[in-house]
Amino acid sequence: MEIAARTIERLKSAVGAKGFSEDPSEIAPHLEEWRGRYHGHSPLLLRPRATDEISAILSICNETRTPIVPQGGNTGLVGAQIPLEGEILLSLARMNRIRNVDVGDMSAIAETGVVLSRLQQAVDEAGAYFPLSLAAEGSATIGGNLSTNAGGVNVLRYGSARQLMLGLEVVLADGRVLDLLRTLHKDNTGYDLKQLFVGAEGTLGVITVAALKIFPRPRVRETAWIAVPDAGAALRLLRRLEDASGGLLSAFELISRIGIELVLAHIPGTTDPLRLPSAWYVLAEATSAGAAPLRSLLEQAIGASLDEGFVTDATLATNESQRAALWRLRESLSEAQKLEGASIKHDVSLPIRAIPEFLERGCAAVEELIPGVRPVPFGHLGDGNIHFNFSAPKAGNDAAFLARWEEISRVVHDLTHAFGGSISAEHGLGVMKRDEITGYKSAAEIDTMRALKRTLDPNNILNPGKVLRI
Amino acid sequence: MEIAARTIERLKSAVGAKGFSEDPSEIAPHLEEWRGRYHGHSPLLLRPRATDEISAILSICNETRTPIVPQGGNTGLVGAQIPLEGEILLSLARMNRIRNVDVGDMSAIAETGVVLSRLQQAVDEAGAYFPLSLAAEGSATIGGNLSTNAGGVNVLRYGSARQLMLGLEVVLADGRVLDLLRTLHKDNTGYDLKQLFVGAEGTLGVITVAALKIFPRPRVRETAWIAVPDAGAALRLLRRLEDASGGLLSAFELISRIGIELVLAHIPGTTDPLRLPSAWYVLAEATSAGAAPLRSLLEQAIGASLDEGFVTDATLATNESQRAALWRLRESLSEAQKLEGASIKHDVSLPIRAIPEFLERGCAAVEELIPGVRPVPFGHLGDGNIHFNFSAPKAGNDAAFLARWEEISRVVHDLTHAFGGSISAEHGLGVMKRDEITGYKSAAEIDTMRALKRTLDPNNILNPGKVLRI
Repeated sequence: MEIAARTIERLKSAVGAKGFSEDPSEIAPHLEEWRGRYHGHSPLLLRPRATDEISAILSICNETRTPIVPQGGNTGLVGAQIPLEGEILLSLARMNRIRNVDVGDMSAIAETGVVLSRLQQAVDEAGAYFPLSLAAEGSATIGGNLSTNAGGVNVLRYGSARQLMLGLEVVLADGRVLDLLRTLHKDNTGYDLKQLFVGAEGTLGVITVAALKIFPRPRVRETAWIAVPDAGAALRLLRRLEDASGGLLSAFELISRIGIELVLAHIPGTTDPLRLPSAWYVLAEATSAGAAPLRSLLEQAIGASLDEGFVTDATLATNESQRAALWRLRESLSEAQKLEGASIKHDVSLPIRAIPEFLERGCAAVEELIPGVRPVPFGHLGDGNIHFNFSAPKAGNDAAFLARWEEISRVVHDLTHAFGGSISAEHGLGVMKRDEITGYKSAAEIDTMRALKRTLDPNNILNPGKVLRI
Repeated sequence: MEIAARTIERLKSAVGAKGFSEDPSEIAPHLEEWRGRYHGHSPLLLRPRATDEISAILSICNETRTPIVPQGGNTGLVGAQIPLEGEILLSLARMNRIRNVDVGDMSAIAETGVVLSRLQQAVDEAGAYFPLSLAAEGSATIGGNLSTNAGGVNVLRYGSARQLMLGLEVVLADGRVLDLLRTLHKDNTGYDLKQLFVGAEGTLGVITVAALKIFPRPRVRETAWIAVPDAGAALRLLRRLEDASGGLLSAFELISRIGIELVLAHIPGTTDPLRLPSAWYVLAEATSAGAAPLRSLLEQAIGASLDEGFVTDATLATNESQRAALWRLRESLSEAQKLEGASIKHDVSLPIRAIPEFLERGCAAVEELIPGVRPVPFGHLGDGNIHFNFSAPKAGNDAAFLARWEEISRVVHDLTHAFGGSISAEHGLGVMKRDEITGYKSAAEIDTMRALKRTLDPNNILNPGKVLRI
């Protein structure tokens, strides 16, 4: 794709001298996705600081039919933020003011480029709590979180990014500004347009500012590491702990024994919290902003589960460093699997009750295709979201294993679909799953998605080729 | 409007002999909105029992450009469900099977015509809890609740209808069926189309089946009636109780003294729960599915608030009949106001922290216009939603008072807008606020709404003239 020099000049003057770069060394970090699967190129990096600059940029792009790719913290996993075809690159990183944290209103207003961890910290300093939390929070931005409807570890209690949003300001493809920046908990005045832009991966508009819900800061936090014989037992435990805590469970993560073995083998300083190995573990956390006696409630519930035999052992963290050590086991799973060698990964979600059967049938199907393959399933069981990963056989050839990614994915995704599940629980479609998804959605659904895209971006300038082909 | 006899015949044969009526006495109850503000007429009432019948109906309507008005329980307050121009009437009441209540998956699947209270009961019998609850729940249907994004008394804790939805089946204007009926908590595979139909008042598609979230059944329920000197004190109390209960507050209703006086005067068997009158009251309820000691937590928090002077008196219900009596005071407000005489009503929402100032300025502005007017504000303070109602002056002329409805509304809604609020918190636009809203939204927002309507219903057959003019 060739972008006219005249267009480049107009875009540069829309943002002023500090608002762009044509220096390949400055552009380079924006062109590569961090897992290395997607590489892009771009003649021009734009770094606007304000909504009116973004409006001017899109207006020029729309008029000249110039494609443009919005980018936040460049932490996406499906290639949505990479200019694969030489598009203009629109970095939103400099639009990064936290405009307001209002504990009286329990809302915060942040510009699109605010890094998630910075917002968490600002809300904490104001005496409240912003619950969105995920591995990439030190780089990921609020605009990117919303554009991918990010999930993370607290979805069970607080919902995904969509549920945390109160209002948005969005620049439309033609440069018009859609001001939906309200902090209302109830507003039924016509179509709820802001919903359109959440999870749209920058293809329907550019989110410039967001109003978000904040919550009372948790005062009590109890974290347990619990051994269970199988995934069905983990589900029973989920219901038991939900009941016992009265809905105060904020995380419920399922981890298989092999996952822990990989962590213990590759991550220095980690230790097994329990004396005897177990086929499966649950990392559960409950929090309360009030004075609920969470510890004794959890102890009683876990004790009863031990008596009934669907829990075999458990430990509760007694201080912050023990708690951090338990979470480190969970959060090191991806890195440990990477250090172990090649792996094929899936981010699926299922109706929660179907998960035990899905895990059993999914592992069997892949083991039949690749004898010796090592399934490493883990994830947010409370949300029905499993990172259904497979490590290469121990003595196997990594390249030969990875060459079968599509074949394996087809089996896993077909099974997911058969159970009424989703082939992308929290990572989005980007380019990675853009074509594959058409096999799992009806023509009516894909056609309606396409009709929305054509309505909101008739010239197909906004992140073209991502989410769906036009 | 004249609908061709040939079209009527085709529609009748699409549903079979039991699926329609042309009998005016059978059609009549569907033509009048219950407050009597909107009256419609229709040559044909369709009562389909299945999605494929609705698909056939819309396909015929779309082909023949025949307008059609979907209707659930006919409890809407803004005229959206009434065939004002002689449209075909599509009653969804016979499509009323509860397909599944799955406590293992914490989801329920209900057809569009299921009455809300019936679903509540079925979920309760299965040992779980469906939290959507509102005055009209004995008639209102799930499809109508979703089409208006219904709120009610538990929004503070559980959200509006949108937040309770997991999946939808929808028939599009041209008869195609959009199957989005999943029970997943996480699914990021492209545009979240189901969001479009929630709150769209039947103008973008017809919701036929819904998958909904269900929750652990509350085991502990504590209800308090609390006197506060002003709305600012009520807000302080809200934060205090939220903190004390750790997010377990499910209702927080603000009621003014005059509201209680009207209830005591008009509703037999009601009594004032407290010895001395107070300018304002709060009805607060906290629930837990676990074993949290809610009563002592609330008692402590209310005691501390008394000591600090922003609460002046309080009582906690000690049994279910006391609890019912407290809620009866709140739920009788509308009826008491009706029995007192003429009233002008508004359903506004505001940023929560702005409410005390809004109430003060709003009452002053209306009192200046109509000396002697009696403000009767009450509502869901925890959600920022105020039913900002005014009763006619005591010795006044009701007709003369009501003649000033638009004038008063303009003042109230302008003030609402100035505070960043919404002129329809939970009732929708229908025809009642369709034109007025254009004064409070940007051209970009209205144009985008219109573009969506044209995309999804190009022949403008679905509830035409509701929500917006095309």
